[in-house]
Amino acid sequence: MIRAAIVGATGYAGAELVRLLTGHPQVALTLLTSRQYAGTRFDRVYPSLAGCTNLVCETLSMETLHQKADVVFTALPHKIPMSIVPELISDNKKVVDLSADFRFKDPAVYEAHYQPHEAVQLLDQAVYGLCEVYREEIRSTSLVGNPGCYPTGALLPLIPLVENNLIDMASIVVDSKSGVSGAGRSLSPVAHYCQVNGSFKAYKVAEHRHNPEIEAILSDVAGQSIQVTFTPHLVPMTRGMLTTIYAGLNTGVSQKDIQNSLSAAYEKQPFIRLTADGQLPDTLHVKGTNICDIGFKIDRRCNRLILISAIDNLGKGAAGQAVQNMNLMFGIEEIAGLDAVPLPL
Amino acid sequence: MIRAAIVGATGYAGAELVRLLTGHPQVALTLLTSRQYAGTRFDRVYPSLAGCTNLVCETLSMETLHQKADVVFTALPHKIPMSIVPELISDNKKVVDLSADFRFKDPAVYEAHYQPHEAVQLLDQAVYGLCEVYREEIRSTSLVGNPGCYPTGALLPLIPLVENNLIDMASIVVDSKSGVSGAGRSLSPVAHYCQVNGSFKAYKVAEHRHNPEIEAILSDVAGQSIQVTFTPHLVPMTRGMLTTIYAGLNTGVSQKDIQNSLSAAYEKQPFIRLTADGQLPDTLHVKGTNICDIGFKIDRRCNRLILISAIDNLGKGAAGQAVQNMNLMFGIEEIAGLDAVPLPL
Amino acid sequence: MIRAAIVGATGYAGAELVRLLTGHPQVALTLLTSRQYAGTRFDRVYPSLAGCTNLVCETLSMETLHQKADVVFTALPHKIPMSIVPELISDNKKVVDLSADFRFKDPAVYEAHYQPHEAVQLLDQAVYGLCEVYREEIRSTSLVGNPGCYPTGALLPLIPLVENNLIDMASIVVDSKSGVSGAGRSLSPVAHYCQVNGSFKAYKVAEHRHNPEIEAILSDVAGQSIQVTFTPHLVPMTRGMLTTIYAGLNTGVSQKDIQNSLSAAYEKQPFIRLTADGQLPDTLHVKGTNICDIGFKIDRRCNRLILISAIDNLGKGAAGQAVQNMNLMFGIEEIAGLDAVPLPL
Amino acid sequence: MIRAAIVGATGYAGAELVRLLTGHPQVALTLLTSRQYAGTRFDRVYPSLAGCTNLVCETLSMETLHQKADVVFTALPHKIPMSIVPELISDNKKVVDLSADFRFKDPAVYEAHYQPHEAVQLLDQAVYGLCEVYREEIRSTSLVGNPGCYPTGALLPLIPLVENNLIDMASIVVDSKSGVSGAGRSLSPVAHYCQVNGSFKAYKVAEHRHNPEIEAILSDVAGQSIQVTFTPHLVPMTRGMLTTIYAGLNTGVSQKDIQNSLSAAYEKQPFIRLTADGQLPDTLHVKGTNICDIGFKIDRRCNRLILISAIDNLGKGAAGQAVQNMNLMFGIEEIAGLDAVPLPL
Repeated sequence: MIRAAIVGATGYAGAELVRLLTGHPQVALTLLTSRQYAGTRFDRVYPSLAGCTNLVCETLSMETLHQKADVVFTALPHKIPMSIVPELISDNKKVVDLSADFRFKDPAVYEAHYQPHEAVQLLDQAVYGLCEVYREEIRSTSLVGNPGCYPTGALLPLIPLVENNLIDMASIVVDSKSGVSGAGRSLSPVAHYCQVNGSFKAYKVAEHRHNPEIEAILSDVAGQSIQVTFTPHLVPMTRGMLTTIYAGLNTGVSQKDIQNSLSAAYEKQPFIRLTADGQLPDTLHVKGTNICDIGFKIDRRCNRLILISAIDNLGKGAAGQAVQNMNLMFGIEEIAGLDAVPLPL
Repeated sequence: MIRAAIVGATGYAGAELVRLLTGHPQVALTLLTSRQYAGTRFDRVYPSLAGCTNLVCETLSMETLHQKADVVFTALPHKIPMSIVPELISDNKKVVDLSADFRFKDPAVYEAHYQPHEAVQLLDQAVYGLCEVYREEIRSTSLVGNPGCYPTGALLPLIPLVENNLIDMASIVVDSKSGVSGAGRSLSPVAHYCQVNGSFKAYKVAEHRHNPEIEAILSDVAGQSIQVTFTPHLVPMTRGMLTTIYAGLNTGVSQKDIQNSLSAAYEKQPFIRLTADGQLPDTLHVKGTNICDIGFKIDRRCNRLILISAIDNLGKGAAGQAVQNMNLMFGIEEIAGLDAVPLPL
Repeated sequence: MIRAAIVGATGYAGAELVRLLTGHPQVALTLLTSRQYAGTRFDRVYPSLAGCTNLVCETLSMETLHQKADVVFTALPHKIPMSIVPELISDNKKVVDLSADFRFKDPAVYEAHYQPHEAVQLLDQAVYGLCEVYREEIRSTSLVGNPGCYPTGALLPLIPLVENNLIDMASIVVDSKSGVSGAGRSLSPVAHYCQVNGSFKAYKVAEHRHNPEIEAILSDVAGQSIQVTFTPHLVPMTRGMLTTIYAGLNTGVSQKDIQNSLSAAYEKQPFIRLTADGQLPDTLHVKGTNICDIGFKIDRRCNRLILISAIDNLGKGAAGQAVQNMNLMFGIEEIAGLDAVPLPL
Repeated sequence: MIRAAIVGATGYAGAELVRLLTGHPQVALTLLTSRQYAGTRFDRVYPSLAGCTNLVCETLSMETLHQKADVVFTALPHKIPMSIVPELISDNKKVVDLSADFRFKDPAVYEAHYQPHEAVQLLDQAVYGLCEVYREEIRSTSLVGNPGCYPTGALLPLIPLVENNLIDMASIVVDSKSGVSGAGRSLSPVAHYCQVNGSFKAYKVAEHRHNPEIEAILSDVAGQSIQVTFTPHLVPMTRGMLTTIYAGLNTGVSQKDIQNSLSAAYEKQPFIRLTADGQLPDTLHVKGTNICDIGFKIDRRCNRLILISAIDNLGKGAAGQAVQNMNLMFGIEEIAGLDAVPLPL
């Protein structure tokens, strides 16, 4: 059994990791840390898990991590991970970091949007954990920077089209809509029920930190610098993220070309579904899963592609993908622990 | 493998059965029927299941049921099941019926609230599928009348107290609150989003058909006739049912007596959780599960017990309990297919 | 014009007061205080009111209140009002206090559930602002203790029946369900969107502070001590409160008696509606209003009354009733500022 | 008093009209028609209006319209209005039609997306009822084609920028998100609570009938043919519509130019608010109103404008604008009946 620890287990991504790893057939969850809830049983913080885990939250201790874990999931705000990950890597642990600290190859980009990077020496070996794109690199690394939720929803549909040069790289607009759990468990006016219910709004327009993340990976894949306009919105629902992408089609590109490009990239991927004729992705269809649904439509009159993806922001957008990364890093079946049948509603 | 068929697979309880049985390690789901969707792939009706099942909905055919199923789940409105179940039983199938047709021992009670009963000869062998109460009878029957959602939420907390004669039988009030999926998938003004959102209301007060069902089972357990006042309410959420029960305490009954009675009945039951000190049941904690959470509080000044349960109306209140019944009927592990770790949110 | 000030204007009840008083034809809203938002325009805190008010939130100052207000609404947590209301009364202001500080005639009851009372001398003149019941007293007082939301929803339907001795006083159970705005604007895990959405639960069962408030007024009206069991629940919606009340009927009491008692009390009251035959109250029907809808049903088999009311917890349950009280205190039309046509959905 | 009739009063737009006209100081609502509810009191269909109107729904009768109405609001599906409006116009009634029948100057465009037009002779005199743009024409016509909700949300922010030639006309993308009431009161799987709750999805991508409506008006204003890509989405909320628009900026266009253009067009308009610095439109801020909030942001790196509007789809998107049109047609104050202070939450 793989012994797993979660650092920052009581945030929403952490709690979803607890769920997935508790049910994972090849994992023994051995350690949960939480600053706020140290000394409290995890199932008192999340009573839905009563009877499923007896773990008590602990204070973060490198010594305990050393003893109890083969893999460490760091589900913390950025900046904290880079202060502990180097020691874990030295200790031969495998690490999946859910913060932004190890997502950027270029520390200058990270530092332009976050803060000074204190573990630059690890950036070379860190792999961006978008499994369908960097699978081989993930298999052979000890350190994964788990992608942000918005980048996951934007990159998966876009990458095959960018790689095949089907769309106008200067024309990409990403209009994303996220459920509230993406804002995390911290108390904030933005997450107060009465501010969310009946409310739909954009926020951090053209200045969200996931914007450079999307661009860095797209540029890497395309072999050229790509900039996109990115607008996140908040939807009155708990889980789910729909991403509507607009891009001009390159000359002569047909419906079939788009279809073939997506099919070639994804038809054998266990967690990507291309929606059937006439259907489009819906967040309800991927709730609680590690699945990304992708569909598209062409506006012929404007020669523009509308490309749509749906994920669960806590699943494929966070904890699900983190587990998928772990599976790849340990060479076990990629779908292990992630193959529950989705809820019909 | 147990070969299972679902008759009426595209209603909400049917679809939840598809989910649970598709993921059940000892079941092969072989047949789905649907009048409305015959000829349509099930995953076109519920796209969340794309990639999980290739079954195409079929018209109901006794011949096909005969060939393909060891167990048949009838997830249909009452009246239809009693027209097909006799033949299935003759054919040595095991049947879990989710309608009201086989829940009542006394056909007169059934007929007073539904319509003339056309399969009276089966009522003797039919067992009321409240697993924690009638487990042994279920193990040896071929026909289970799966309990209604409201009765499940009311009976599980009440029965140990009634059996131990701790409460005043004439004083029981059941105030229930259900998510909208309990009203089914049929189109109705009651289920229109704009009529539900922002709305909380009672309906069918003191005249809901689950009222006599609660009374029949309570009376059976108590060995005396018991009548209860029952008020169902509709909550703006998809899944979940909270039941708040009021009853006068018999003389001298203490907090400890209630606690001991519930513990004795349930502490070893896999799907019942007694909430920890200070916590009370919450529908969010049982979403998507077959679990019933139970908690209580005593109003000493009024010498009155407040007893609360939470279930998922589609889970323990319908499809989950149906699978639990099947597990008992086939002598396999009771939790098989029902042990997924609950969502933290 | 009546010059009105709101102390604590940025909480939810305060903001609803701003809305109602801004639209009130005989009121000039002159002063808004807020500790947290002093110096900030009110419409930056509540952008829906942009263009309707230019007021800037100020720090509380008795001097400014002295100069600018004829009536002061104190929309603050209990304890603070009793430290400022005495001075306002001495200054000949009229005061509507939305906290619990002036709701109890007996300071011992207040102190048993809150804290030591520091303005006991005002309790004699303070009137409980349940307008339909204490209208004449309200007309001639300068100090109103505005009722709690739960007590308003419970007392209005119960009082006529208690006064007419139609129900068994020892048998009353109040099962209440409130929208989330009742928990206020303060950040709290209880109000986090992801904890509320999909969640239905009871809280503070048999220990909520509105329990003694309900009992004090019921006892006052009945001329005898009455105790009730009270269970509040939280509903996933912003506004609205449904109260389901159970009580045994006294011998010989008929459907007609209940109907007549309610009609006699309320058919000429502008803000009480008795639901028409076959319909029952629904929170959606009173959203944004000062209306209380009342309906009932008799469970003949158990000889028990089920009595149901619906209010908007921020309307008749807080700010709406506060304005109604002000109207009465100033001798202007009772419905002034409260007669907007309700939203159909 | 203006005598008003609503044909199709029990749909959602019709019911919102009933609310607004019942509260309108210069209107007497004299007649409500409904095929489905003829003979039923309107307040039985919408109980929130009990006590506000005694009108009983009637079957449509031209004779009764002739006798009772000065203005007729036709709130019906397209096609029916064009069969009755000609007679109403001949009868010297003023008509505000909420369907698409009189929105297009060019019958060929209408017929390409709807059906053969049967009242072509009225298209010349019909005015598109976007009040802020066609105010003078509306003042002098007897027939207004009330704009669709999506076009209203898209056109109001776009028109000043198009008129001032600030954006690249070939680059416009309109990404709209609507509450469920926009789908109407008819029963449909799309509006079933359990299909909407937790769901966010696009629909009718690049093929919605409001697409040509947006283009026709934009083209009219620009004096050149403009095509836009339009994607509507469904949001789990009852009321509200957010429109996020993307367009390339023409060379040299600054933030100030956009600001000035919007200010010049709208700062004196009673129902348009330009959001203050740093704030962006939110559907919660316009719920129940006739207001359109507009804000924007420039993505300098991509030289692209992100333009955002929020309306209530039943208010400015339907019934509110219809009343504003009536006010203009009768020469009364433009805000009459539409000036209620918005709800803070």
